[in-house]
This record gives sequence, structure tokens and C-alpha cells, in this order.
Amino acid sequence: MPQLRIALAQTDPVVGDIAGNAEMLVEWTRRAAERGAHLVVFPELFLTGYPAEDLVLRSSFVEASVATLSATAARLADEGLGELPVVVGYLDRADLAPRVGQPKGAPLDAAALLYRGEVVTRSAKHHLPNYGVFDEYRYFVRGDRLPIFRLHGVDVAVAICEDLWQEGGPVSVVAEAGAGLLVVPNGSPYETNKDDVRLELCARRAREAGCALAYVNMVGGQDELVFDGDSLVVDASGGLVARAAQFKEELLVTDLDLPAATGEPGELAVDAHDGTSITVERLVLSGTPVEPYEPEPPVVAERFDDLAEVYQALVLGVRDYVAKNGFRSVILGLSGGIDSALTATIAADAIGPEKVHVVLMPSRYSSDHSITDAEELVRRQGLNSQVAPIADIVSAFEKEIELHGLAAENLQARVRGMLLMSLSNEHGHLVLTTGNKSELATGYSTLYGDSAGGFAPIKDVLKSLVWRLSEWRNAQPGHPPIPENSITKEPSAELRPDQRDTDSLPPYHVLDPLLRDYVERDMGRDELIAAGHDPELVTKVIRLVDLAEYKRRQYPPGPKITPKNFGRDRRLPITNRWREKLG
Amino acid sequence: MPQLRIALAQTDPVVGDIAGNAEMLVEWTRRAAERGAHLVVFPELFLTGYPAEDLVLRSSFVEASVATLSATAARLADEGLGELPVVVGYLDRADLAPRVGQPKGAPLDAAALLYRGEVVTRSAKHHLPNYGVFDEYRYFVRGDRLPIFRLHGVDVAVAICEDLWQEGGPVSVVAEAGAGLLVVPNGSPYETNKDDVRLELCARRAREAGCALAYVNMVGGQDELVFDGDSLVVDASGGLVARAAQFKEELLVTDLDLPAATGEPGELAVDAHDGTSITVERLVLSGTPVEPYEPEPPVVAERFDDLAEVYQALVLGVRDYVAKNGFRSVILGLSGGIDSALTATIAADAIGPEKVHVVLMPSRYSSDHSITDAEELVRRQGLNSQVAPIADIVSAFEKEIELHGLAAENLQARVRGMLLMSLSNEHGHLVLTTGNKSELATGYSTLYGDSAGGFAPIKDVLKSLVWRLSEWRNAQPGHPPIPENSITKEPSAELRPDQRDTDSLPPYHVLDPLLRDYVERDMGRDELIAAGHDPELVTKVIRLVDLAEYKRRQYPPGPKITPKNFGRDRRLPITNRWREKLG
Repeated sequence: MPQLRIALAQTDPVVGDIAGNAEMLVEWTRRAAERGAHLVVFPELFLTGYPAEDLVLRSSFVEASVATLSATAARLADEGLGELPVVVGYLDRADLAPRVGQPKGAPLDAAALLYRGEVVTRSAKHHLPNYGVFDEYRYFVRGDRLPIFRLHGVDVAVAICEDLWQEGGPVSVVAEAGAGLLVVPNGSPYETNKDDVRLELCARRAREAGCALAYVNMVGGQDELVFDGDSLVVDASGGLVARAAQFKEELLVTDLDLPAATGEPGELAVDAHDGTSITVERLVLSGTPVEPYEPEPPVVAERFDDLAEVYQALVLGVRDYVAKNGFRSVILGLSGGIDSALTATIAADAIGPEKVHVVLMPSRYSSDHSITDAEELVRRQGLNSQVAPIADIVSAFEKEIELHGLAAENLQARVRGMLLMSLSNEHGHLVLTTGNKSELATGYSTLYGDSAGGFAPIKDVLKSLVWRLSEWRNAQPGHPPIPENSITKEPSAELRPDQRDTDSLPPYHVLDPLLRDYVERDMGRDELIAAGHDPELVTKVIRLVDLAEYKRRQYPPGPKITPKNFGRDRRLPITNRWREKLG
Repeated sequence: MPQLRIALAQTDPVVGDIAGNAEMLVEWTRRAAERGAHLVVFPELFLTGYPAEDLVLRSSFVEASVATLSATAARLADEGLGELPVVVGYLDRADLAPRVGQPKGAPLDAAALLYRGEVVTRSAKHHLPNYGVFDEYRYFVRGDRLPIFRLHGVDVAVAICEDLWQEGGPVSVVAEAGAGLLVVPNGSPYETNKDDVRLELCARRAREAGCALAYVNMVGGQDELVFDGDSLVVDASGGLVARAAQFKEELLVTDLDLPAATGEPGELAVDAHDGTSITVERLVLSGTPVEPYEPEPPVVAERFDDLAEVYQALVLGVRDYVAKNGFRSVILGLSGGIDSALTATIAADAIGPEKVHVVLMPSRYSSDHSITDAEELVRRQGLNSQVAPIADIVSAFEKEIELHGLAAENLQARVRGMLLMSLSNEHGHLVLTTGNKSELATGYSTLYGDSAGGFAPIKDVLKSLVWRLSEWRNAQPGHPPIPENSITKEPSAELRPDQRDTDSLPPYHVLDPLLRDYVERDMGRDELIAAGHDPELVTKVIRLVDLAEYKRRQYPPGPKITPKNFGRDRRLPITNRWREKLG
């Protein structure tokens, strides 16, 4: 059987930085060439970054992508890399007349094959995801071509991301047309346990297509999304051959024995088993197998366990949001509680403790341990800290307007938010928001108070997971731990004397499973009760969650780690009288 | 020719209030019956309200819609209204097996015909809009049936909203199958000049379908959207027969002479000229024409002129956001400038001046006229006002942390925002944000400062339009005018001595056209320069707009009036290195 050495470029393209991404393509292609690869594959929409959202609808942006693609093909040849074929995702457009209902400019989520200085073939994603965090009917028209190119005597087919997830389309066409290898550029964001689903999917599609499958994912944070890498290669029977690390860039080089090519060059329309037909385009780069060589042992990176995986996603999300938006440091309020302690720790792990600034902002209701626990964290991790008591500022407000109860409590949170924003303006730090998903769900946060900030690292982390992550992090040798007292103390916002979260909420081990079922699984009231949740609590929590929608709308973005985050994933009206909330 | 009296129920359903909307259906059907109508038509998704966003993906919500529909049909008969056929939009689901890429539960944007206590036929929208503010591939599967029911000897076909806008599909099927009248339930949000487009579209589709067309739109505000009503009837040649008022509920009753029915009852699959086929279902309610009667003269409501139209959209947007979210009053900061003066005036016109609370929050940099102009507005319009100077609060902050330049300026804006939020918490007022679109575009606003609030009435209004609207409003007899000085004075945020907007921005008559081209028309840098904008200014403004994306993400919602608002309409990444902004 012919051999091929394929290189999967698990890279971190930056949205909008077309020139920089092209630079990265050349650099990684050179690395692949140095490793003796016969083919290098980059992720989906690598050249523009992903998701570029409405930039895709600007003709200037599409033109830059298309022009840069050709220029990069030429440049690869100029730099002596033209003999190494490159498959790369980029943004193109279809030659379609404008019509109502079609995205402006008819953009394509495309892949190109670059070889000997030319763009040899172009195709585009056939299945467009338009659920969850994806809005691709807004952005793209559907592709209808499947390129199969002969490389050193092996037929290599190209499909893109969602084409693996949906039935029919390119995979079924590969099965009929026949190929030795299917390469798939992806932009597949992380969520808990996605890696297991992904491997199973690739194995199944490889068996269906009847050939080996190479899955290349990007890595890095982009606003709410974290791409986890996890690129992999399976053989035609679905067996795992090689797998890249999670959450970091890697050139995954794999040697494969693949069946000799059989198809005839040319074009052929094939029924795609989804109500459409796809044109198979076969072309030949080189018909002769490479001289037999000694393969390298395949790399299979170890998987993180579940908690490590989430923690790494949060760290990468923070690191990339900070770096890609040009910040050099972050600032956050440290209360002595676990949410801010974990947020500070994630930030320190992401960008280094010397770039993390914390502010202790005690009020008249702050307990002694709040200050000492916060100070202990600062000391252990080497953070920069300052103290800014809020009592005098709160008094100044209360001289102008009279406030009671909740209004007075919220004022304290808002004074803290303002201090952080002011210090951010003064020194250029990014403000990190420390709220968790349980709080965000139930609305137990103050708009422009503790919810103030530019990025919210744990906004998709339920409180019980906040504790589990903290314990996991404390068990990691060589990393200065979070003070135990911050983890074990009873949670309190300390906005009035002796306040406890459980004054108004059930314990988190009861609340969080209910939130998961309501928020992430969209269960209705009856379903929630049937699933075993207390009916009275169901009524109360649904009401809290629904009424807090307006607050969530103004919350900063943060990394998605669950199947459904607040933000791109869960989209509800603010004005909403659906009676589910009233029981 | 047979006669028919049709009643178009231009109503204001509330999202989620299925029971309340059903109640409204019965009430309006009774009114139609009292007017002697032979058919009454309600808007798209009337029963659930529109857009219900992710509620549509909950099975509890779909089930409530379907069950309420049947119950309402029965109730109409119970109340003696069963002989009056009702066409109404509701949420249904298709009987499709789940699959990746298909919205959960396969929801349908459906229409039903209710008659004699039964749901006689059901169909669903065929074309799903997924551009601009619409995300309907996320929510619905496509309908493939076209009902044509015979009513008093006239064949009446039903299509839904987007089915008019896109080529092929139901309209082309009506043309082939033949009908005397096409009724179209809609949920069509307002934007400037949409009424002209709408009339032209209806006229064209009536000619294509070869029959009269009755277009029923909803009215009212729903978060960012304002539905403007403007229901209308055109004859088979596209001539306008009747038209309802804009921005208010109305039962539009119209007598039509329509061609006698010709089709045979039964089902028939017809090519829909868009790659699909549609099943025409013909049924008979009553074959005999009504006894000839004297028609009522048709109603054609006068159109508002362009400024009046925008102003009414803003007023309705505010009124409905306040009412539907259960607020009884609003609060806002009054600076003496035109933005807050216009916002207060819109609020007073929307809910009455006695429900509008304003706070004057002078700083050390406030000029005398700021106070006197604000006080004059309060006096003229009869608003509730209080004064809360910010100097002492700002000093209290500055004792804790040292701030300079922009950070010190922003602090003042944030102290004002906090005062308003505190008063909102204390008294239950909705905070109105007073920023305009020029400010929001360029980022000349302070996050959690002047951008704080729950609803932003003029966020989609460019500054030059703010002035024009104010002048228009001042020309309306019987309405207490905005003090002339607030309109004519040079705009300033008054955050430092002698500050003027033009210190850092070009005059608005130069800035606003550029913003319109960049923000609303997605022009790239080269296109903007080719369109005549100053290249240096283009570079500067693109940079400002792009860098302010994070602020806009946390801005409250406000009514959309332009072809592209910030919010649902324009969706860009925060993390974005697209070099257009750098020139």
C-alpha cells in the first residue's frame, strides 16, 4: 500500500488578521516540510479566523481572503514550499446573483488546495450548522463540490467540519466515489466531553466513507468560544491512529499506509442522499507512490480528565481574550470568597501572577476572614494588590439619595464595580468579572456592580463546579493553592450583616442540577418536576431565571464550557410572559 | 362576482402570553363578527407572540400553543362565533424524526383555519428568513402545504410573511393553482420607509398570484423590534384598496368583489419554482356566494411623514417595553442637552409625564444653562424631577483611588449611572439610557455610566436625526416643546471644562453619513473613500467603531428604526483584528 506522511496544523488563527494568519500558514508549512510531510492540512476558515460573524458579509473582507489565498500559494512556491500540497480553510464567494434570503455576497466556507504556486482546487462546506452557537445560514451558501486529488498514488478527499456531523452529503459521496483518505478542516468549539463525541463521530464517518479520516481542529479562544484542538486521525475501520494535545498548538505528523488510488480523473455529479447532488472533481497531483520509508511512531496525546479539561478551557479562554484584544494585564475584585479566588487563580495561570491586579474593597459588612483569605491568596500566588475601602464612598452616595434594603446592597456592589472600572481606565487593565453560572442564572448579581467587566472567566461554571475546580486546582503539585478557607466557608455576598447565599437560595447541590435541567436542557415545568425536582423550588427558580434575562444581556462574554452557555447559545426574549415561570 | 367582507386584525400579541393572546383572538373575532365580516385574519405567530426566540425550542411551549389553538377553536364555537372563519398564526411542530441540523422538536411557523369549532387546516411558512434580525433556520422547519379554502364561493389561499418576500414558493403556486384572494399573516418589524417597500411588494405579488392580497401585520414593541401594523389590501392588479393605520391596533374591515371559485377540492403537488414542491390542499367551507350587499367605503389611513413615523416608532417601542415588562414609571438623567431632552419627551409622550422621573446631576463642570435648560423642560412637560449633585461622591472616590484624564471623566458619568440605578432599585423605575447611535457607534459613551439602563429609546437614532426629530416634535401643536436652547447649543458631554463633542469628533453632518455608510451599509475602507468620505476621517472612524464593539455588547436594547441597528442586526466579534480599521 502507498505511504503518506500527513501533517495536521492544529493552529490558532486570529479573527480578522488575514495577513497574520497567512504568515502563520507559511511558517507551519515550512515546519511540515522539515518534518518530511507529503500533505499539510489547516483548520476551517483558517485564513480569516473563525467565527468572523458579519465581517463575512463585507465584500472588502471576502476579497482580502481570496486575494491573500492566491498570494500565499505563490509565496509558498517562492519560498521553496510549492511541492508540499496544502489544504486550508478560507473565505470565498459563490458566483450567484443576489436574491432575498441569500447572504449578501454569497460567501462560502471554503477549502482550497495549494500546490506549486497555484490554487489547484476550491470547494466549500455543504452542511451549514444553524443551531447552538452557530448561525451559518446567515453567513454562507452551501457548497456542492467534493474534490478528490491524487497524491503519490492515494486519492485524498476534502470535506469541511459540519459535513461530518450531518447525514448525507460529502461523506456519503466519498463512500460512493471511493478515496483512500478524507481530510477535514474544522472549527469545532470546546464543550464538556466534546472530545469523546468527536472521536466516536470520526470513527463512524471513516467506516461510512470506507477510508482513513484526518480531522484538523483549531485551538484558541475567540470571544465566548474556546477551540480545543484535539485533532485526530482514524483508520478506515475507525481505529484511532494519532491524536494531538488539547488546548495547545501542535503539528501532528502521522504516517499512514493507504489504499492505492482507483478513480478516473474528471467530474461527476453524485446523489448526496440529502436531496442534493454533489459534483466530484478528481484531479491528479502525482500518481506514483513515494519510495517506501520507515514510518515514525504515531503520536497519541494523553487526554485531560474532566476537571483538568474545563480548567484548561478557562485558562486558554482568558489568555487569548487578553492577548488578542491587546491587553497586558487584568484587574479584579477579591472578596475572600471562592468565585473571585478561582477567577484570580485562572488569570494567574493564564497570563502570570505579575499581570494580575486585585483590589480588596471591604465594606462595613465584610468579615475579617474576607480580608485575611484574600490577602493570603495574594501572598501565595504573588498577585499585585491594593485596598480600597468602600464605606466612605457609599456614605457620600447616601448623602445625596436615600436608599433601603436591596437598593442599598446593590450600591455597595456598584461602588466596587466603579472602582474596578476606574482603575481599568486609569491603568489599561482588563476587568475580569467573577460571577458564576448559578449566580448569572438566578440573577443574584448586581447589574454594573459585581457584573461589571470586560470578560467573565467562570460565567459558564455552575457554583458546584467552581468548588470542584478549586479543589482540583489545589491538588496540582507546584501551583500555589487557593486558601482552603475560601473553598470551605459558607458562600455569602456580604452585602448586609450575616448574609448567606442560602438565605434566599437552596443549597447549590440542589440548585445546580435544577439549573442544568432548565437552562441547558430546556425542560419545561412539568418535565422538571417529573425529573424529581421539588415543585415549589421549580416554580421559584424558573421565575428567577426568566426575570434575570435583562441582566444577562448586559453581562460581559466569557468562555463556553457547557452544552448551553448564556450568550450565543441560549437566546431568549427579555419581554416574555410565558407562564411556565409562574407555575 | 361574489362579495366578501374581510377583517384584518392588526393586533399586539405579547410574547409568551399564549392564554392572553387567545383571549384577544376571541375578543377581536367577536368585533369582526359584529362588523359583519365573513373572514378574519390575525398576524403571524399571533398565539405565541413573535419573535419568541428559543422558547420555540421548548416542547412545553409548542404544546401549549397547539393545545390552546384547538381549545380556542372550540371556544369560538361555544361563544357563537364558530361560523366566522379565522385564519391565525401559531406555533406547531412537524412530524419529523430528530436529526443533527434540524431545530429541536421541528417547530413550524404555522397558520390555522378555525371554523365551526375545529381546526380545519394547518400550513406553515415555506421561506424562512435568516438575515438581518431574523434567525429562522434556528427555529423552524420549512412548510410544504398551501391551503386554499372555498368561502362563500371564493377560493382563499394562505401564505405567511417571508413567503411574499422570496421568489418561488407559495405565491408562484397560487398563480398556478388559482385563487380569488391570498391572505398573508405577518410579523414585519418597522424600519424607515418599510411601508413603501411593503406596498410595492404586495402589489407585485398580487399581480404574480393573479388575485387580491390581504396583508395583516402585528403592531407593538418587542425588545428591539417595533411592529408598525400598516396592514393593507390590494386588488389583483396591485391597486391599493384599504390600509390600516401605523403603530396602533386596528380592525381593518374591507369589502371585496372577488372572482368565483374554480378549483376542484383535493390535494395536488405543484412545483414551487424554488427546487421544492408544495402540496395544494383545496377544501370547501361554503360554495354559495353571500347575498349581494352594499359595501362599506374602504378605509385608507393616512401615512405619517418620515419624521413622524420614526417618532411614533420610538414612542411605541418605549410604551410597550415599559408596559409589557411590568414597569409603571421610568427614570433618566437630564443633562440639559438634546439627547436626554428628546428621550424624556418620547417617554412623556409614551407613558405620560407623571410617570417620567428625571434626575439633574450637575458636576463641577456643568454649565449654568445645563441646569436651566433641564429645569425648563421639566416645567414645560410636567415631569417629576430631583437634583443630586455628584461632586461630593466623585471626591469620595478620588480619596480612595487616584484618577486622571479619561478615567476621571468616566467616573463622573458612572456616578450618574449609579445614582439612576440606585433610584431605580429603590423605587422600581425603569432606567432609560439617553445615548444616540452616533455616540454608540464611535464609543463616545462610558460603560456603566451614561450607557447604564434597561432600555435605550434613541440608540438607533443618529445625532443629526436626534435634532431633526426634536425640531419636528417642537412643531407639533399642543405638545409642550423642548427648550430651543437644548436643540441649538453646541453638543458637549461636560465632563471637563469647556469640553465640546467637536474636540475629538467631526461635526455630525460629516460624521453621520460616514457612520451610515460604514455601519448600516457595510462599506469597506476603499468603498467609503470612493463614496467621497475623507480618507483620514474614514480611518479614524472605522477604528473608533471597531474598538467600541465591547461597549455595545453591554448596552441595553432599544427600538430599531434603521435598516441595520446595533444588536440583533449587526453582529461582529469583539476579538477582531481585521485591518480595515487600520487603513
